[in-house]
Amino acid sequence: MSFLVLGTVALDNVKTPSGVKKNMLGGSAAHFSMSARLFDDVHLVGIVGKDFPKVHLDFLKRKGINASAVTISEGKTFRWTGEYKAEDLNSAITHETQLGVLADYTPVISDQQKKFSHVFLANLAPLAQEKLLSLVNKPDFVGLDTMNLWINTALRDLKRLMKKVDLMVLNDAEARMLSGERNLVAAARVIHAMGPKIVVVKKGEHGVYVYGGKFQFGYPAYPVAKVVDPTGAGDTFAGGLFGYIAKARKSDEKTLRKAAIYGTVLASFNVEGFGMGKTAPLSMKDVEKRLKEFQAFCAVERTGK
Amino acid sequence: MSFLVLGTVALDNVKTPSGVKKNMLGGSAAHFSMSARLFDDVHLVGIVGKDFPKVHLDFLKRKGINASAVTISEGKTFRWTGEYKAEDLNSAITHETQLGVLADYTPVISDQQKKFSHVFLANLAPLAQEKLLSLVNKPDFVGLDTMNLWINTALRDLKRLMKKVDLMVLNDAEARMLSGERNLVAAARVIHAMGPKIVVVKKGEHGVYVYGGKFQFGYPAYPVAKVVDPTGAGDTFAGGLFGYIAKARKSDEKTLRKAAIYGTVLASFNVEGFGMGKTAPLSMKDVEKRLKEFQAFCAVERTGK
Repeated sequence: MSFLVLGTVALDNVKTPSGVKKNMLGGSAAHFSMSARLFDDVHLVGIVGKDFPKVHLDFLKRKGINASAVTISEGKTFRWTGEYKAEDLNSAITHETQLGVLADYTPVISDQQKKFSHVFLANLAPLAQEKLLSLVNKPDFVGLDTMNLWINTALRDLKRLMKKVDLMVLNDAEARMLSGERNLVAAARVIHAMGPKIVVVKKGEHGVYVYGGKFQFGYPAYPVAKVVDPTGAGDTFAGGLFGYIAKARKSDEKTLRKAAIYGTVLASFNVEGFGMGKTAPLSMKDVEKRLKEFQAFCAVERTGK
Repeated sequence: MSFLVLGTVALDNVKTPSGVKKNMLGGSAAHFSMSARLFDDVHLVGIVGKDFPKVHLDFLKRKGINASAVTISEGKTFRWTGEYKAEDLNSAITHETQLGVLADYTPVISDQQKKFSHVFLANLAPLAQEKLLSLVNKPDFVGLDTMNLWINTALRDLKRLMKKVDLMVLNDAEARMLSGERNLVAAARVIHAMGPKIVVVKKGEHGVYVYGGKFQFGYPAYPVAKVVDPTGAGDTFAGGLFGYIAKARKSDEKTLRKAAIYGTVLASFNVEGFGMGKTAPLSMKDVEKRLKEFQAFCAVERTGK
């Protein structure tokens, strides 16, 4: 069945030790969708400017992503220019952010989309995320992502929104910032108490930790010997995680474990290439193959006495 | 069967956000032994000064650790004074190191001990580690640990020694320093090419990554919401890992996976208390209970379709 993702659609300029790429299709909702499309019918809600290359929109559609709720507005598309240094490929250094049409964006969706049961609020201003949520008629399951910028500048809005969502994904630095706890196990408990029933802490190369009140689980990352470009890895992870949940229409522990493993596998492809270079060509067969490798990699049952 | 561990026996003064403890029994070989004793008959090789409290030696013996090769020498016991700050409990800040009797220590073992098949060289100067190894008659399996100090000051000795061992354990920072690779998957491959057939990268709160040429595997850490004192966690991990290998008398992938899981479980107890406060009282029953919890925590098979 169909589900919604709201977030940014961007033009990215990225420099990493592997090279420099300009005007790549990027943004939280675009990366999310490129991953989630493998699981279910994803509808992307966002905005671009008149300068946005038609080839990018055509590309999203060709990949099976419904872009009917992408507003094309007067003005410039959101642009991000950033860099990753060899010493710490986990941390992006932002050189420039041009909000453009994002500055005063209000999400718009169709009457049909208002009936969707699953909604993911990818990284965007909490007020815009909340606005979209208000348009949807009693969704069954809502996921939320955010970033350090909103924790610093829109904490009150974010906290209000956190009470309305079922699942929240954050990276390790954001989890520490939001909770005030350095220990991620403790941080997840603090965030859980702030609203989300399921807290997913993304630790980049170190994997994922999930806390759901009555259960917790964790996995390492799939081992990638050369990270080319980590941009969008967190969104790609969220796309795999939430895409699987949306398809399953369940959110019990077993479903969440499998969803987190899919997210892990998708994110590992993402970092192996620039932008969507490695995720866009993927078929479900490729994903299942690496999933099996990953399950063998961190299998504990194989170690029975 | 019996096996050897060489390393430091120390008196530790430790400050962490949870408190301050003075004159605790510590040191690489002591922490290793307190963990390894649960698996097999461990013989500790090391040196202490005449100032070393007899209660500590009695304590080691009472725990089933053979201390017949612990030399009691004129002079002062090795002392370490360090601190962990709340911002980063993974990194020790050393305030003072007093080598004492360690300064010109040469390991001495009995003729019986020279015949042991399994030897672990816990953190100590590479020349002293190499000396012990030369005393043992063709051991079947040798493990090695080290620290940043020796990578910086005795790299040539360390590299020579690395060619003579089967397994090497390092923490993430040491693996990066020794290999020159920031990516730990890549770092393990570089270190593997330097000699050790099995490279075990300890990542503290992020778990462990193991590379063995034809296989690789990884696990997250057992989730600990409050780290009291991480001193000796790496040695405790190595004690569980190597203790299991020594007992099994095998080092195939299956054995190594189980060994790494035992190491993970033992290390999780270590960090929950000061010094050996939580590891010394442990029985194998306690360990097996947490091992089951850990296997459930990171189980991937439970997520089958």
